[in-house]
Amino acid sequence: MVTKIDHIGIAVNSIDEQIPYYRDALGLEVEKVETVESEGVKVCFIKVGDTHIELLEPISDTSPVKKFLEKNGQGVHHIAYSSSDIVKSVLDVKGKNFQLINETPKTGAKGKLICFLHPKSTFGVLTEICQETEVH
Amino acid sequence: MVTKIDHIGIAVNSIDEQIPYYRDALGLEVEKVETVESEGVKVCFIKVGDTHIELLEPISDTSPVKKFLEKNGQGVHHIAYSSSDIVKSVLDVKGKNFQLINETPKTGAKGKLICFLHPKSTFGVLTEICQETEVH
Repeated sequence: MVTKIDHIGIAVNSIDEQIPYYRDALGLEVEKVETVESEGVKVCFIKVGDTHIELLEPISDTSPVKKFLEKNGQGVHHIAYSSSDIVKSVLDVKGKNFQLINETPKTGAKGKLICFLHPKSTFGVLTEICQETEVH
Repeated sequence: MVTKIDHIGIAVNSIDEQIPYYRDALGLEVEKVETVESEGVKVCFIKVGDTHIELLEPISDTSPVKKFLEKNGQGVHHIAYSSSDIVKSVLDVKGKNFQLINETPKTGAKGKLICFLHPKSTFGVLTEICQETEVH
């Protein structure tokens, strides 16, 4: 059911500061920037082949990304896998006794359905499973 | 010149311990395991769409991955981008004043040519650029 890496989330202090690296040094295409109020972040997508880098910049002091930055500094925040059936994927994960942060999908960037697995259960890698709900 | 994410490198204590998560819970295909003596690691590739997760398990106390684990614990170690021309990509990166760890490509897993960018230069993300030299 997992078909590809949907994106790699990276916690950053400033999206604007990092654009020259991705766009000019690596030659990648910087896509849309959007705000995900529920997560307290501004998000910038950078296209790489059929996946994306997702730069996450906190816009509130209570944002989980803000807490991540305070604890770890800038760096990879999570890996997101695309699923063709997120409900089935969640059942598969639970059935093998891996722990989820939210079992009921919530809405993330680009209108996707998203569930997070707990990093303590996935060997230190915060992991998202997501499913597209509209065409982008 | 960068065409896709080649792989996401993850530092692990034990490859064997993590196989059930990737194979059984996420339903991914576990590929070959190989040893990269120069880096002091055993490497396991897991196919996800047209890219891979690369599990890195240290096999010596002097392995950089061993040092990473001691400092950070298990988690994402690096992101690797595929380039169709690694020499040109290195020149692009240098030309924009981003710092490399090695400017001359060395040989990595699967016989690829690899260069690493310095994480201090790339906002906390250890980054590899690689180029295939043979068909896998």
